[in-house]
Amino acid sequence: MRTTELEIDTGGEVAVVDITSRVAEFCSEGGDGLVSIFLPHATAGLALLETGAGSDDDLAAHLDTVLPRDDRWRHRHGSAGHGADHVLPAFISPSLTVPVDDGVLALGTWQSIVVVDTNTDNPDRTVRLTFLAG
Amino acid sequence: MRTTELEIDTGGEVAVVDITSRVAEFCSEGGDGLVSIFLPHATAGLALLETGAGSDDDLAAHLDTVLPRDDRWRHRHGSAGHGADHVLPAFISPSLTVPVDDGVLALGTWQSIVVVDTNTDNPDRTVRLTFLAG
Amino acid sequence: MRTTELEIDTGGEVAVVDITSRVAEFCSEGGDGLVSIFLPHATAGLALLETGAGSDDDLAAHLDTVLPRDDRWRHRHGSAGHGADHVLPAFISPSLTVPVDDGVLALGTWQSIVVVDTNTDNPDRTVRLTFLAG
Repeated sequence: MRTTELEIDTGGEVAVVDITSRVAEFCSEGGDGLVSIFLPHATAGLALLETGAGSDDDLAAHLDTVLPRDDRWRHRHGSAGHGADHVLPAFISPSLTVPVDDGVLALGTWQSIVVVDTNTDNPDRTVRLTFLAG
Repeated sequence: MRTTELEIDTGGEVAVVDITSRVAEFCSEGGDGLVSIFLPHATAGLALLETGAGSDDDLAAHLDTVLPRDDRWRHRHGSAGHGADHVLPAFISPSLTVPVDDGVLALGTWQSIVVVDTNTDNPDRTVRLTFLAG
Repeated sequence: MRTTELEIDTGGEVAVVDITSRVAEFCSEGGDGLVSIFLPHATAGLALLETGAGSDDDLAAHLDTVLPRDDRWRHRHGSAGHGADHVLPAFISPSLTVPVDDGVLALGTWQSIVVVDTNTDNPDRTVRLTFLAG
């Protein structure tokens, strides 16, 4: 087992941040197995998406429909609608597992690993990576 | 590898049940690795949420919006709207993986592991835990 | 660790395809551990559902409500509403982990492993299976 933590900056705005290259670099030390990607945060999630062709913006925009930033939420700390950020991880899990072949992520051609973060109050995020050799 | 099953009672009402302390106790036997948390049920899911500050109630309430308990569902056994319970696991997966460091769950400060159960017909639930050492 | 790839045909229509028996066959070579099920595709996901009692159709129909196939999406290649297919994996993850006991999937009585594929432009899908012994 190998493990590390990445520090990322989601910029203080609704963000879909591609971390594929950083996860790939961690895995490139070699071996077959599984990599666990884990966000130790209660207001963000992880997804596998095509990036750079509109879908990252589509997801960020659609989250406003699925989890409206209005006054329905009982959790009311922080920015308006912040209660939605706390429900997000139930739908977009902060835990993801990806196979690794000889140090290479076994992603499909159009898959990128992204952090989905609608919480504009906390731009500093940690991503925990754990490689379990097979 | 170590494994166990927890028995929990979700009380026969829509429930977001915090199981963090019981998962932590299982992991406390020591070791670095990953813990797989798995629900062998077709009408409940698992999530990582902040609990005790409104978000657990927010999630339970919002599921009525995302998966309305009306007559749209073809699956019609049990209570009114029960078809929604059977679609829930597609959106809130019954499988979750969390890193473990020297017997301690590597959760963020505000993360708790919860069972999300909208099925009021079955309060008796099993949670399967599997620790894979690194 | 053992690994394989399944080839499946989702038929060129919105599909919820049960792959349980093929995953079970892979696991039946024996051993305790975890099986990782992974779709290397950007427009499909995996779920654990009861099949054959309406819920597979319920899910397929409800995805039209949660991810409407209209002109809201910036990603506009392919069929009308195809942008929705690219957002689907954020909500229905293409990665799933299931415990295995002595070569048998530790699923609940009503759980089946399904591929959820709303993308009618690509019926040829690969499912990557990885068994990690405990």
